[in-house]
Amino acid sequence: MPSISQRGKDMPQSPIRKLVPLSNDAKRRGLKVYHLNIGQPDLETPREGLEALKNIDRKILEYSPSEGLHSLREKLKGYYDRFNINVDVDDIIVTTGGSEAVLFAFMACLDPGDEIIVPEPAYANYMAFAISCGAKIITVPSSIDTGFALPSVEEFEKLITPRTKGILICNPNNPTGYLYTMKEMIQLRDLVKKYDLYLFSDEVYREFCYTGAPYISAFHLPGIEEQVVLIDSVSKRYSECGIRIGAIITKHQQLKQSIMKFCMARLSPPLLGQIVAEASIDAAPEYMLMNYNEYVERRKFLIDGLNRIPGCYSPIPMGAFYTVVSLPVDDADKFCEWCLRDFDYEGQTLFMAPASGFYTTPGAGKNEVRMAYVLNKEDLGAALKVLAEALKAYPGRTNPA
Amino acid sequence: MPSISQRGKDMPQSPIRKLVPLSNDAKRRGLKVYHLNIGQPDLETPREGLEALKNIDRKILEYSPSEGLHSLREKLKGYYDRFNINVDVDDIIVTTGGSEAVLFAFMACLDPGDEIIVPEPAYANYMAFAISCGAKIITVPSSIDTGFALPSVEEFEKLITPRTKGILICNPNNPTGYLYTMKEMIQLRDLVKKYDLYLFSDEVYREFCYTGAPYISAFHLPGIEEQVVLIDSVSKRYSECGIRIGAIITKHQQLKQSIMKFCMARLSPPLLGQIVAEASIDAAPEYMLMNYNEYVERRKFLIDGLNRIPGCYSPIPMGAFYTVVSLPVDDADKFCEWCLRDFDYEGQTLFMAPASGFYTTPGAGKNEVRMAYVLNKEDLGAALKVLAEALKAYPGRTNPA
Repeated sequence: MPSISQRGKDMPQSPIRKLVPLSNDAKRRGLKVYHLNIGQPDLETPREGLEALKNIDRKILEYSPSEGLHSLREKLKGYYDRFNINVDVDDIIVTTGGSEAVLFAFMACLDPGDEIIVPEPAYANYMAFAISCGAKIITVPSSIDTGFALPSVEEFEKLITPRTKGILICNPNNPTGYLYTMKEMIQLRDLVKKYDLYLFSDEVYREFCYTGAPYISAFHLPGIEEQVVLIDSVSKRYSECGIRIGAIITKHQQLKQSIMKFCMARLSPPLLGQIVAEASIDAAPEYMLMNYNEYVERRKFLIDGLNRIPGCYSPIPMGAFYTVVSLPVDDADKFCEWCLRDFDYEGQTLFMAPASGFYTTPGAGKNEVRMAYVLNKEDLGAALKVLAEALKAYPGRTNPA
Repeated sequence: MPSISQRGKDMPQSPIRKLVPLSNDAKRRGLKVYHLNIGQPDLETPREGLEALKNIDRKILEYSPSEGLHSLREKLKGYYDRFNINVDVDDIIVTTGGSEAVLFAFMACLDPGDEIIVPEPAYANYMAFAISCGAKIITVPSSIDTGFALPSVEEFEKLITPRTKGILICNPNNPTGYLYTMKEMIQLRDLVKKYDLYLFSDEVYREFCYTGAPYISAFHLPGIEEQVVLIDSVSKRYSECGIRIGAIITKHQQLKQSIMKFCMARLSPPLLGQIVAEASIDAAPEYMLMNYNEYVERRKFLIDGLNRIPGCYSPIPMGAFYTVVSLPVDDADKFCEWCLRDFDYEGQTLFMAPASGFYTTPGAGKNEVRMAYVLNKEDLGAALKVLAEALKAYPGRTNPA
């Protein structure tokens, strides 16, 4: 039998999805499983998007342009304007989800052996896309002890080599919920400018900033406009992860042309998703505010609840809808598996993403999990209760309750 | 400004789409442009698919499983059964179009520097996906003079090196319309078996075989079941290219697991497209037959018409809905550009795909174009007239009309 590629062997299993088979088994055994593992909001897709879907009266579901529907790109431009992200329609390339945006950005910017510096813990799939390109992710550790603040600029600078091509941030951050300050962003800007690097900035959670601190887009930083590669997606802000619509935004002309070659090779992004996304951008301010308020409440409810469980600790996330939590367990990977395989509390259990998959430093985050607060408060409450009981029953608990 | 990747520079421009800006310019000038460049059928998507779209009453357009909806995979299994392709639901992984199927198959099978042998001319985007993986496409030339028959097995064997990991065929063939015979397929089987190679088989045009000769799937070949990687897509057979739903089918367990890592990294294929695809598989036999008959007629109409234009020659394609045509021109790339930029006949012009982009051998196919017969007969007739007039007027014509 022919062998598989080394890249396939090196590819990590998604920490978000690798336990799906265990979760499915648990459901088959009749358990109620609370999904804190994945950022799939339970909030409704905006009415405008669902109506646009109902109103599609095309007879042929044909290819769209490789760069995406012009009308969607125009709508996106207007949307970015609202955040003082000043880009032209031509700077916006529609992709099949934020996932493809990251993949194509890496493919077009990075050669095999090239390095990008990423604060860890980091969204696990960045690693997968880097491996797809033969590029290396070099991590700067941030720590739960400092609330996952950006490491000092010196820590970044120490890691820069002749192969360094960029810095990647996710802001507001998945998985930590950290929101970068203006001071931090300016430091990154200076570094990117000094070493002529790309600044890949994944800003898909921009709608979700909870502390009154401003959201700072990489495009707000003067002097590096052509070095910024912005990653976006409509998935989270309109609760429509399944339609697979994202975008890459860049003002680097040559890069744009190169990305377009990858786009043309895959012909087009999904037509139906584009129609829904375009309409969703018109979602009523009341819808956006209602969802925002809902996350504010869930965040408070979950974080308070977690910090009341003996041995648990979560910093207060400032944005997005995730938090990284340290648990009083020997090994969070084992604990997450155990919850799905061996435990239930009154017919219920929990699906969490072990945080180890968000770190590349071996051993880092060993007692941490990522939780998404995308469930309603009732379910979050039940999940907290199940977690507390699981921690009492788990054989690998590290400190007394 | 940071540099772009070498891979991005090496990436060819899609011969199918690179002239789109010129075509858009022509339209802006008020010209009617006949699109023979792209396999975008003008036939309607099946009623079943369009109705399923209308009937979506979900409130949340959420992620689907990374491997695709189970119900769609079951439907696909039933569909393959009809073609005596005996696979399990677990062998089927749903992808974002056939494009992603090719990309993930290459990513999971090929290491940088690995080689796959492909008869040329070949679907241009295979090259793009190989470059994405750092793999090399080694071409075996087939020629218009022999109707693009598969080169002899010796021609393949001569090209096999320690880095050869597979052979890729597209059957029925895009761009040539060639349909591989049982004898040819058995020869490929023997070769694949002898050298322990993958057989990548792109069979998205299986519904379109016109000569009574049987369609032979790579999965019909005994003894290499675990070496076959079948590429599929619903785009062409249901005229729904825009929904971006394809599939990879493999019985190689380790490969399947590796492909799934790439699938999990991109989270899920498009939900809405999957719903439409699943329903489309139930398209009435009358719909399939009507479309089939339509292509039979168009094929006859186009090929007859082409071969009546002095200096033009097209073999008779046996399947798919493309043909490669030799034209009495110095350079088909220049001719195709000229048609869009400098020519019109009574306010009309033609968009054809230069065949050079389907060859890797330098200079091959220089006077050839690929045409897709996806337009109705009236438009095809007008396109033929425009072509004849264009050839009369083109300054780079090579032999007298």
